[in-house]
Amino acid sequence: MRNLALGIDIGGTNTSFGLVNRRGEIVVQSRIKTVGHATVADYIEHLKNALDPVLDEAGRTNIIGAGVGAPNANYFTGEIINAANLLWKGVIPIAHLLKEALGMPVTVNNDANAATIGEMTYGAAKGMRDFIMVTLGTGVGSGFVANGQLIYGHDGLAGELGHVIAVRNGRPCGCGRKGCLETYASATGIVQTAREWLQQHDDETMLRSYGDALTARDIHLAGDAGDHAALAVFEQTGEVLGQILADMVAVTSPQAIIFFGGLAKAGKLIIGPTQHAFEENLLSIYRNKVALLPSALRDADAAILGASALVW
Amino acid sequence: MRNLALGIDIGGTNTSFGLVNRRGEIVVQSRIKTVGHATVADYIEHLKNALDPVLDEAGRTNIIGAGVGAPNANYFTGEIINAANLLWKGVIPIAHLLKEALGMPVTVNNDANAATIGEMTYGAAKGMRDFIMVTLGTGVGSGFVANGQLIYGHDGLAGELGHVIAVRNGRPCGCGRKGCLETYASATGIVQTAREWLQQHDDETMLRSYGDALTARDIHLAGDAGDHAALAVFEQTGEVLGQILADMVAVTSPQAIIFFGGLAKAGKLIIGPTQHAFEENLLSIYRNKVALLPSALRDADAAILGASALVW
Repeated sequence: MRNLALGIDIGGTNTSFGLVNRRGEIVVQSRIKTVGHATVADYIEHLKNALDPVLDEAGRTNIIGAGVGAPNANYFTGEIINAANLLWKGVIPIAHLLKEALGMPVTVNNDANAATIGEMTYGAAKGMRDFIMVTLGTGVGSGFVANGQLIYGHDGLAGELGHVIAVRNGRPCGCGRKGCLETYASATGIVQTAREWLQQHDDETMLRSYGDALTARDIHLAGDAGDHAALAVFEQTGEVLGQILADMVAVTSPQAIIFFGGLAKAGKLIIGPTQHAFEENLLSIYRNKVALLPSALRDADAAILGASALVW
Repeated sequence: MRNLALGIDIGGTNTSFGLVNRRGEIVVQSRIKTVGHATVADYIEHLKNALDPVLDEAGRTNIIGAGVGAPNANYFTGEIINAANLLWKGVIPIAHLLKEALGMPVTVNNDANAATIGEMTYGAAKGMRDFIMVTLGTGVGSGFVANGQLIYGHDGLAGELGHVIAVRNGRPCGCGRKGCLETYASATGIVQTAREWLQQHDDETMLRSYGDALTARDIHLAGDAGDHAALAVFEQTGEVLGQILADMVAVTSPQAIIFFGGLAKAGKLIIGPTQHAFEENLLSIYRNKVALLPSALRDADAAILGASALVW
């Protein structure tokens, strides 16, 4: 009996994969770098080489197929289309390429949508019919669930919350426009905010010691240690994020907004200021009604589980 | 056989009502003013007095029930909750009050949602599974349809596009916040934009002659006559509206956006500049894919048809 599904999460930096059983347990998982492959063909070959021993070990006849979460991936066409966070541009027929490489059926979804399905099936959104999942990673992704269904949109490309304009004529974005939410509320966005803060202030702060190597994780650790600059940077980030999320509530009126991804690991440091700005900016009919929650799934699990859930 | 449904559309200014047959034809319709009633009880009495002869004429045994579209109305609870565009504040149990007054079952929906259902059943959105209906009236309303279903949200209050913040710290809104889309893209918003234009310029223009009595309809007629100030005002209005609609596409990726309401009657005058700003602000994956269309239903018909469609 085939009782395992392969889940593959293609992120801007890393690609995580795992075999998941019917109970939603990840029985084996690993990852490779997404970055550092000049062509898609190189990447597919590297991924196949990493997967082959895992699939052989589990027994290929036990595996039903693969579900893939990837940036700008289209559930309807199986393609990745002009993903701002990947080095490969244009249209990548990722479902077709992986089917050829792995010799099994492949279903593709937006990485944020895949995480949303994982959260809805196993996590903090279990049983919810209306919620928004926000992924704060290298970029900002999202999955909107309404009436118990993921919103795919006419062409399968709904849920690009990261490219809602947060600041008119604001920071340049990888998408070619200016002021997108993900230039402020992603891991890269918060580092930029920290750099600007350091330029505008002379204060002593833990952040200054990192120099050009400063990461979102460093800001998180400095915030945990009570560093005032790090707290100010989280405050600014949460303000932008909370304002935009308040606007999103006016569209879909969700029961909860769930935060996932590297920057979301900062927990209260990011959710606290976001909640403050969120409530301040909500239309009164929505105030104190929408819960802001951290993901209930560990690390990369949501994305792998969500991707694998596409298979069943 | 009961073969008529009563549709009632409660707008900020007028209340339209009509009896609709199973083929979607409005067999009789009329209206009263919504404004000018100090209490809800006065309004309900006036509405009952206007409806009674219509219901008697058609034969009460022929009427299945009433569907009501109203601002901030909740499909789940049958209440109007703190509607910014009505003089009566707080929670109004409109379904209960009308059921008592009319002696028939009453179903309530957001007026914009009702118009959306009308458009989906009989109008420009016939057969579409993913679209946005935008009502440009005294305020700005909306209905979001995804996967063929209207998005109600967790509490039935989804689709408040008019209260998405278009300009941070912008014009004061009736909701108590600042910069809401409806302070720019509604009939009242465009009049405000025209007043500001007139203050900032000394040019001769048809708009100046109206003085304090200037209405959106006057700006529409001046625009039709090629008045440069009116065209500039539509340009500014369309820019704000197009920017926000581009953001909305990133959320639900619709096949089309359909414009309804008094200001939408200006047709190309408003849709032209909106489309220009819309395409300029869209994320590239959505460009040239989303149709901006005028409603295919005449005047108040969409709202009455939509409200009545709740009955069947």
